[in-house]
Amino acid sequence: MALIVKKFGGSSVANAQRVMNVANIIAEDYQKGNQVVVVVSAQGDTTDDLIEKALEINPEGPSKREMDMLLSAGEQISIALLAMAIERLGLPVVSLLGWQAGFQTDSKYGIARIKNLDASRIEAELARKNIVVVAGFQGINKYDDITTLGRGGSDTSAVAIAASLKADLCQIYTDVDGVYTADPRKVKTAQKMSEITYDEMLELATLGAQVLNNRSVEMAKKYNVELEVRSSLEPKVPGTIVKEVIKMEKMLIRGVAKDSDTSRISVVGLQDNPGIAFKIFNVLAQKNINVDIILQSIGRDGTKDISFTVAKSQHKEAVSALEELQPALNFKEIACDDDVAKVSIVGTGMETHPGVAAKMFEALYEAGINIKMISTSEIKISVLINAKDADRAVEAVHDAFIR
Amino acid sequence: MALIVKKFGGSSVANAQRVMNVANIIAEDYQKGNQVVVVVSAQGDTTDDLIEKALEINPEGPSKREMDMLLSAGEQISIALLAMAIERLGLPVVSLLGWQAGFQTDSKYGIARIKNLDASRIEAELARKNIVVVAGFQGINKYDDITTLGRGGSDTSAVAIAASLKADLCQIYTDVDGVYTADPRKVKTAQKMSEITYDEMLELATLGAQVLNNRSVEMAKKYNVELEVRSSLEPKVPGTIVKEVIKMEKMLIRGVAKDSDTSRISVVGLQDNPGIAFKIFNVLAQKNINVDIILQSIGRDGTKDISFTVAKSQHKEAVSALEELQPALNFKEIACDDDVAKVSIVGTGMETHPGVAAKMFEALYEAGINIKMISTSEIKISVLINAKDADRAVEAVHDAFIR
Repeated sequence: MALIVKKFGGSSVANAQRVMNVANIIAEDYQKGNQVVVVVSAQGDTTDDLIEKALEINPEGPSKREMDMLLSAGEQISIALLAMAIERLGLPVVSLLGWQAGFQTDSKYGIARIKNLDASRIEAELARKNIVVVAGFQGINKYDDITTLGRGGSDTSAVAIAASLKADLCQIYTDVDGVYTADPRKVKTAQKMSEITYDEMLELATLGAQVLNNRSVEMAKKYNVELEVRSSLEPKVPGTIVKEVIKMEKMLIRGVAKDSDTSRISVVGLQDNPGIAFKIFNVLAQKNINVDIILQSIGRDGTKDISFTVAKSQHKEAVSALEELQPALNFKEIACDDDVAKVSIVGTGMETHPGVAAKMFEALYEAGINIKMISTSEIKISVLINAKDADRAVEAVHDAFIR
Repeated sequence: MALIVKKFGGSSVANAQRVMNVANIIAEDYQKGNQVVVVVSAQGDTTDDLIEKALEINPEGPSKREMDMLLSAGEQISIALLAMAIERLGLPVVSLLGWQAGFQTDSKYGIARIKNLDASRIEAELARKNIVVVAGFQGINKYDDITTLGRGGSDTSAVAIAASLKADLCQIYTDVDGVYTADPRKVKTAQKMSEITYDEMLELATLGAQVLNNRSVEMAKKYNVELEVRSSLEPKVPGTIVKEVIKMEKMLIRGVAKDSDTSRISVVGLQDNPGIAFKIFNVLAQKNINVDIILQSIGRDGTKDISFTVAKSQHKEAVSALEELQPALNFKEIACDDDVAKVSIVGTGMETHPGVAAKMFEALYEAGINIKMISTSEIKISVLINAKDADRAVEAVHDAFIR
């Protein structure tokens, strides 16, 4: 007998038929004698529909507290419907909202973090032989007000429950059947991995592979929760296990990822004084702007240029923050490029294999693709290229390493 | 400065425009310096849509606990949207779910009764100068599980808050602008009353006037909460005040109501032994079947007949309960008549005016309408007639007394 936490995303419960499908997956595990806790997101487009209703009433943007009150109704509907589907199969079940399941968070509405999970109610329901269906993405703060965890928060809810209950396995069901070496819709030769480490998964998630939410992987790593990524539509197909240490396979590179949600900003013609980089990145940090690849280069006339990438959504904010620095830094101009994409390869142990970077650059060169920026870490190499070249670049790099 | 509780039904908040309309009504009261607590139902058809989703997943009927979990999401959406609309007007507001507002109920899911209202959170929010928007219809039980109060429960929520806070006024906004002497859509000469007593309102509600939920009127009477029925679409028009004692007006009869949701059942050919009526009505009470008008008459051969009316929805259940009694009571047959309606006149002090009943029967006689059963109380007279005659009967009786 095992204790299994299963998480199903919004598309897995988008309509009555899919809800019944999920109920059947759960029933199979329960009937084998396992204890089962299920975390569900809001159905399909519910969240988007609710946001639309809110903006219709207040186009300038409602308060985040009321937004969380509104959006958390989405999971309330999906947990009740999934519980009803499980009831229909004749199995004992109880649905729990975030606060009922014991999720206590900080008060940052919309992007709350879990401060504590008091799992006593979940444990009591499991002891009563109930299947427990928990609303993902939500909790309450110290004022007893409802908070939401932000995008991908249901993954985090599932991992938190698995960590708290010391579950044997935490299965994340999505619409893909595992983690691939590249996007299988784009790269025909993409291969599914049977295992991957937390760190590799983190790099892949950050780099736009969009399989698992990053915070959930970080939490899984911290509490050593074994994750499995599976497909709810093909529940018989084994997925990809994410864990701390995996047996080394012949494949060194674990995946190739593309991230088109990136913009390059260059501050051109800076005086070469100490503290300039600090001033630039400090003002961005104060505005919660995440900076990714950073490049500093010598410009003309002994001045220097600093370039970096940010998410497209933070582009404007970053530029106006920098413009405020103009009087202090006296730079020449700010140059921007939205038409870029980041392509990265990820693999543990990469830093001990010096040929990896050269092989990647060679593959890009042979495909006639120009590299604008380069960034490396212990387990990844990222290049910034023109957006139009991105898909070809992924294919070329994937073929060089994995085919 | 007054403390006002305002309740808006689902049709008053059915879309973004109506939500803004309600926000403006609230703002006007708040800006006059009043403290305002607002109780809202789920938007328009939300509840019906959610029920449909539930039955799609489990056509045999989901458990009541999960149904309450599902349906209570409806008010959660409407309180958040209304709070956002009030925010847009620049006023301070906070939305509260049933449990956050302190509604503690028993555990009868779907038809829960309020056991206690701990209004401390509402009071704290009022002290912070917030407009407080509360989800009607819902609470939690001792297991911290969500319950709903059943049809019309939002009226009860509003009255409970008004009672607990000792509010100066509890305004119930509906799609009519007050309580009329008859259905104004059917009877052209129907007149709006400026005041009516709790008891009269209770009789009118029971008799199918469908303006206020009965439990809410009972609670208002018990705690002496002054109610006002108003229209959310014509907020400037004064409504009808419901209270304990009103100044006597020349009009003796307060209203004429029609109830088509009734069936007559006759148990024919009963032996004339003691205890027979007890046995019949005891078995019906055990099955929670509400009996309205009762008539006992002498039949042929020294046997007797007992006739009574029940709601149409309980008709079948009542008949099968009686059939089980056949071996014990040895009656001849059960006769049923679904094609009936009840028409009633209501007015305090009626019992001291012996001419009232005669005047009602005369009006019906002159309209050529046959009376099947009669029932009277201190403040009402009801007659059972053929369903097809009901509208004519209301008009004839209304004209006789009120025109």
